[in-house]
Amino acid sequence: MIDHRRLRVALLGAGSVGSQVAHLLLTHAEELAERSGAELELAGIAVRDVDAPRDVDLPRELLTTDAESLIVGSDIVIELMGGIEPARTHILAALNSGADVVTGNKALLATHGAEIFDAADQVGASVSYEAAVAGAIPIIRPLKDSLAGDRIKRIFGIVNGSTNFILDKMDREGLSADEAQRIATELGYLEADPTLDLEGYDAAQKAAILASLAFHTHVSIDDVHREGIESITADMIEGARRAGFVIKLLAVCERLAAGGAEGADTADADGESISVRVYPALISRDHPLASVHGGNNAVFVEAAAAGDLMFYGAGAGGLQTASAVMGDVVSAARRHIAGGVGVGESPRQNLPTAPIGRIMTRYQVTLEVDDEPGVLARIAGILSEGGVSVATVEQTPSTDAEGRAHIVIGTHRAREQALSDTVARLQASDVVERVVSVLRVEGE
Amino acid sequence: MIDHRRLRVALLGAGSVGSQVAHLLLTHAEELAERSGAELELAGIAVRDVDAPRDVDLPRELLTTDAESLIVGSDIVIELMGGIEPARTHILAALNSGADVVTGNKALLATHGAEIFDAADQVGASVSYEAAVAGAIPIIRPLKDSLAGDRIKRIFGIVNGSTNFILDKMDREGLSADEAQRIATELGYLEADPTLDLEGYDAAQKAAILASLAFHTHVSIDDVHREGIESITADMIEGARRAGFVIKLLAVCERLAAGGAEGADTADADGESISVRVYPALISRDHPLASVHGGNNAVFVEAAAAGDLMFYGAGAGGLQTASAVMGDVVSAARRHIAGGVGVGESPRQNLPTAPIGRIMTRYQVTLEVDDEPGVLARIAGILSEGGVSVATVEQTPSTDAEGRAHIVIGTHRAREQALSDTVARLQASDVVERVVSVLRVEGE
Repeated sequence: MIDHRRLRVALLGAGSVGSQVAHLLLTHAEELAERSGAELELAGIAVRDVDAPRDVDLPRELLTTDAESLIVGSDIVIELMGGIEPARTHILAALNSGADVVTGNKALLATHGAEIFDAADQVGASVSYEAAVAGAIPIIRPLKDSLAGDRIKRIFGIVNGSTNFILDKMDREGLSADEAQRIATELGYLEADPTLDLEGYDAAQKAAILASLAFHTHVSIDDVHREGIESITADMIEGARRAGFVIKLLAVCERLAAGGAEGADTADADGESISVRVYPALISRDHPLASVHGGNNAVFVEAAAAGDLMFYGAGAGGLQTASAVMGDVVSAARRHIAGGVGVGESPRQNLPTAPIGRIMTRYQVTLEVDDEPGVLARIAGILSEGGVSVATVEQTPSTDAEGRAHIVIGTHRAREQALSDTVARLQASDVVERVVSVLRVEGE
Repeated sequence: MIDHRRLRVALLGAGSVGSQVAHLLLTHAEELAERSGAELELAGIAVRDVDAPRDVDLPRELLTTDAESLIVGSDIVIELMGGIEPARTHILAALNSGADVVTGNKALLATHGAEIFDAADQVGASVSYEAAVAGAIPIIRPLKDSLAGDRIKRIFGIVNGSTNFILDKMDREGLSADEAQRIATELGYLEADPTLDLEGYDAAQKAAILASLAFHTHVSIDDVHREGIESITADMIEGARRAGFVIKLLAVCERLAAGGAEGADTADADGESISVRVYPALISRDHPLASVHGGNNAVFVEAAAAGDLMFYGAGAGGLQTASAVMGDVVSAARRHIAGGVGVGESPRQNLPTAPIGRIMTRYQVTLEVDDEPGVLARIAGILSEGGVSVATVEQTPSTDAEGRAHIVIGTHRAREQALSDTVARLQASDVVERVVSVLRVEGE
């Protein structure tokens, strides 16, 4: 056995991921030493309550409530507490003491990422965060390193396992949203407070992190256009199925050409911009993302040279996410042994974020109308005036007592601003009883 | 603009990948400098013939036939000549002069990998080779870094685009092997000498590289069990389709538990071993690998903690593969700037390679038999005596003048040695006219 250097590792947090990380550090010590070239000595585990029940039995003597003292003198600090404070303060303290930091804290990076990366650059330490996006799937490192010599055009994918589980249950078993949510809660896919997942905050945090890396631009969660799945009904899912689609909550990070994606918008035509957004969208059933079931995640990357790449795997789970953390820990250890400063985040291009009105995509608009002659002509007229070109129209005859029909309109690619203005005009017109739904079509 | 350090880059080879790499270095200089923190100065391009026609126009003054002089004083040497010599000599010279090496040379790494990695470790330089396996798909770095803290159980996937193109054409358009090969040649998917692809050598080289990384063991191409697609006929593909399968050329790298995969083999039960193999196999049409079409590649990784991961993208193409090369170049440049020594290949576990007879999988055996009563009972008896358990049997009634029927037997998991001994006994028996095919079933 090689005489390895010894590195002091501090773990902050012992929840579902943290307890698995502790377990791997304690039980795989010899293999980890071989891989990293250093003995990784788990110096302690900072927790809020040393007596709280845990997924994995951890040696009592390693538990402490004093994170600050634990950080002092550590070579690698693993932050898995989650939340903004005290995680932010502890990470900054660790970096300032010269430690490398490994974190899975998407909320923190999506809000205070700039501050943390700047602090790391100042001292030449590294911050790794593979676990922050898409659980076990290696996506951060491929973006940061493997595609470093390429130019990323677009990233889109399923990055929230809880909402994918719910939408998949609704699609495959015909459940209502409430039923699917109840099962998701029972199986532990949803937290006690499910709004972070259901309203798209969790996906938006991950989108901000991916966009920051892909476009070398500080993107915070405030820059992300966010819509959740609260409005998605069993009827909408059934309608999508009939039209050959499935509804998925997508995170989309897109580079827009100068002047907008297509059709110049001369007011801000002076350079590139980006769009970062999270919303439920229609995906063709033929698309690989359509077959991402349950709590799995998948991310598509479109790069100028590499073409289309897909990364697929478990989006969550304590053990799975612990794998991503351990990959970062071994890399940080190797860096520590090799010497030299950490590779900081790439210099910033600081591309502006375009408002959602600037994006171009296809739409599916479902209207409830009076089932009378001439209605379709009026609607077609309003769409045409609004500059929205129609690709398909399907009219479902009235089945209710009030004699109302549904019209489902598939548009060609249109600018979101034109589409939403036109939908407002349809809503206000006397032929449209109700705008049932407006969904974007992605992945084409 | 930051005042960047300048790094001298030597490019060896200007074929389809090399010329795209040169083009990216010359046209994306500013972006690359931002990403890597260093100006990457393309000092020259070593070629065999400066007047040969190329995919991309390259500045004449950069071309040279003197690779040796070009290497001297370079910080990063990119080897894209292919073949064993002079590539091996040039890479060793580059490493010994302290340069970092980026290569896409799978043939060289699968035969002389140990020598090259040892030379790099001696001087603390790095050898990167993302482009050697699965074109643009980041798979080397995820295995080496992202999964460094996990334990890989199995890798299997489609790593040769040419044979996938041919099998996919046969499957989707009902073409004969000859027709599909002719089209593949016309479209540039096959080389003038197609044996490297068709007989599985190319896939076996990649399997050796993946297994070396995954199992921290020197695996050379001589350790890889290799079968090509030469024997795959349109009939076999049609038969697979009827049974709900598709035939794909798979590379499989597997960790076998002590005593064999299942059912101990006490003779060599003293430790783990690995199996590395390339063969055409049946995959369920529901499996994600079944929908990998054309020249694309996809690799599944099964890890103890991370679970199942999939990486998908373009398996070849000059521009696509150049993206992988450039990712390695930027990483090498960052390392050069940051200082410190290169991260060597992980210490070796040197697991022994098990003979193919030791593997366990399911099989589909197709027999031509006389269409007479009692034949099935005889066959079932021979299988049972051989310890091969039958899962499904389908008998196709005779359609030919000789009154012969086809029997398709799907086995439960069996050990390859037992299966092949049993097939030999079937072949020798008087009830079996001919063993039509024996195919393994993977991905279950």
